[in-house]
Amino acid sequence: MTVPTLTTEKLEVLKHKIDRFASDRDWEKFHTPKNLAMALSVEASELVEIFQWLEGGEGVSGLSEQKFQHVKHEVADIFIYLLRFSSVTGIDLLAAADEKLKLNALKYPIDLVKGKSDKYNEY
Amino acid sequence: MTVPTLTTEKLEVLKHKIDRFASDRDWEKFHTPKNLAMALSVEASELVEIFQWLEGGEGVSGLSEQKFQHVKHEVADIFIYLLRFSSVTGIDLLAAADEKLKLNALKYPIDLVKGKSDKYNEY
Amino acid sequence: MTVPTLTTEKLEVLKHKIDRFASDRDWEKFHTPKNLAMALSVEASELVEIFQWLEGGEGVSGLSEQKFQHVKHEVADIFIYLLRFSSVTGIDLLAAADEKLKLNALKYPIDLVKGKSDKYNEY
Amino acid sequence: MTVPTLTTEKLEVLKHKIDRFASDRDWEKFHTPKNLAMALSVEASELVEIFQWLEGGEGVSGLSEQKFQHVKHEVADIFIYLLRFSSVTGIDLLAAADEKLKLNALKYPIDLVKGKSDKYNEY
Repeated sequence: MTVPTLTTEKLEVLKHKIDRFASDRDWEKFHTPKNLAMALSVEASELVEIFQWLEGGEGVSGLSEQKFQHVKHEVADIFIYLLRFSSVTGIDLLAAADEKLKLNALKYPIDLVKGKSDKYNEY
Repeated sequence: MTVPTLTTEKLEVLKHKIDRFASDRDWEKFHTPKNLAMALSVEASELVEIFQWLEGGEGVSGLSEQKFQHVKHEVADIFIYLLRFSSVTGIDLLAAADEKLKLNALKYPIDLVKGKSDKYNEY
Repeated sequence: MTVPTLTTEKLEVLKHKIDRFASDRDWEKFHTPKNLAMALSVEASELVEIFQWLEGGEGVSGLSEQKFQHVKHEVADIFIYLLRFSSVTGIDLLAAADEKLKLNALKYPIDLVKGKSDKYNEY
Repeated sequence: MTVPTLTTEKLEVLKHKIDRFASDRDWEKFHTPKNLAMALSVEASELVEIFQWLEGGEGVSGLSEQKFQHVKHEVADIFIYLLRFSSVTGIDLLAAADEKLKLNALKYPIDLVKGKSDKYNEY
């Protein structure tokens, strides 16, 4: 019996591929948490760069197909480094995000922050 | 028989929770791709900040339990904004990362880059 | 007759104070170019954070006096790390900026780019 | 009597040139504080990128002449955007840095922090 594609653990498979990508190239020595954090922030800035002179309100509908591909590639690079960082440091991304969401809900109670963008320590 | 919650489903559930977090707070108006890209890069820098004066080679084993929790929270914030950005822009994170990994394999052929850290256009 | 302290001299005095600040605290060992570049980018992101949910067009006139002080402090931190980085690497900031402006003028000829925000390799 | 070059207000001249560069290209509309903060952080990340896989301790002596030129250009771009941001927001860079240095001296008293790299709120 074959397991349908929908239920494969795609995230684990992807993480494994990324780790393999690094080990195949003997890049583990470069992939310290410090260096990976730097690389992640560099990729995040490459995403920012695409939007830096745009109005903002236009969303991605204002982007050409070529620019949107560029956006997808930068998003992918951020995700790849995030998975690699998590692998190297032993962090469970899904569990960490779930836990953080709960903390954020306490920091930003709906009735206090609704429609406002202030930082939690500004209320 | 109940089907166990699998990783890919968990990712969809998480994404849904994050979207709900924003809509509950009427934050959609702030969540333009431009602003989310900025927020993502700010979170990435908060991760960088933890490592900026450290040697590098010590990994996370040199961090106190408190600092490691801090690392996990920053990683989670990056992931949350990445999922939110993907939701707002209609990007499939897993598919985008898979596609980008293939492009990276072409840019960085094993026999050319093994053990070296130069950028692809420096070979 | 006393010569008034002129801007260029003030810049040298400031640079000297910043170097002294580091040596007084025995921080030279942390101030490698790599770490200073990280610290500089972290400060730049702290400036970005202030503006991340704002409309954009309102400039700084929309900021409270307290937020504007915050902006000034982040700008100052960026400048301090930039001067420190320049000191550690032996870069003459004024000369480097002058040289780069000339290169930028070649990359962005007025008649080609007037009123447009595309990157130089997109024309 | 001609005023010697040493005493010209080079920083003011540079700032003026940068403002002129923008107005000549009709770029004032793009140069909101928000967009300039983004551009500044993007340039800071381009500086980080040069160092991201390096050991750290080797300083700039380990860089090729070509890479060092690259460092100088990124440093210059950061300075140019910092001056432009200051111009647009009416911030006096030298005065802001002087004021911030005094605050930093209070946050980081020599006898408390000597030889240590913890953040001010960790002592």
